[in-house]
Amino acid sequence: MSRFAPLPDPPYYAVIFTAQRTEGDFGYGAMADQMGEMAAQQPGYLGDESTRDDQGFGITVSYWRDEESLVNWKDVANHLLAQKLGKTRWYSYYTVRIAKVERAYSGPDDR
Amino acid sequence: MSRFAPLPDPPYYAVIFTAQRTEGDFGYGAMADQMGEMAAQQPGYLGDESTRDDQGFGITVSYWRDEESLVNWKDVANHLLAQKLGKTRWYSYYTVRIAKVERAYSGPDDR
Repeated sequence: MSRFAPLPDPPYYAVIFTAQRTEGDFGYGAMADQMGEMAAQQPGYLGDESTRDDQGFGITVSYWRDEESLVNWKDVANHLLAQKLGKTRWYSYYTVRIAKVERAYSGPDDR
Repeated sequence: MSRFAPLPDPPYYAVIFTAQRTEGDFGYGAMADQMGEMAAQQPGYLGDESTRDDQGFGITVSYWRDEESLVNWKDVANHLLAQKLGKTRWYSYYTVRIAKVERAYSGPDDR
């Protein structure tokens, strides 16, 4: 399965989540799997891309059809995180940026 | 040094570069260092965040003050890549998305 999200014609929205993981799992893996499954079921979900290095520094970008769908997802995600009381255990620091994708292309052969 | 980019008040621009590296270096490391140094010297550069896992799947997001600065950077970067004839050697596939950051926050304690 490709780790690249589909590349629809803009505009659409991106949620850029950059995070430093703490050491140890503390239920993180199970939560991340559950979050991924839930995101994929949300209306307006277009796909996501995610990677993390061996220092625990990760970037996940999820793509959404419109602002409404990502706001709905944020409510669902925050609810789940609150239930799990996980934010402070899993992340030493994170940033979230909501951005409107205006142009997109792929390569190396401009496919 | 923090691996997180600064978090200025929006709006500003993000370039989301997702890429699958080929195996082997082929001058990639030296080029990446040079690109990083050049980006940091560009007018309008705000910072960047980058990570890659042990499968060679990486995401780099660079942040720019406005559209003009990122377009200028794209010209510089493309010129450098063309000089090095590196795109097809270094990447089996990549996507680039230009996005306008509308909202941003950090955590886990809403710092």
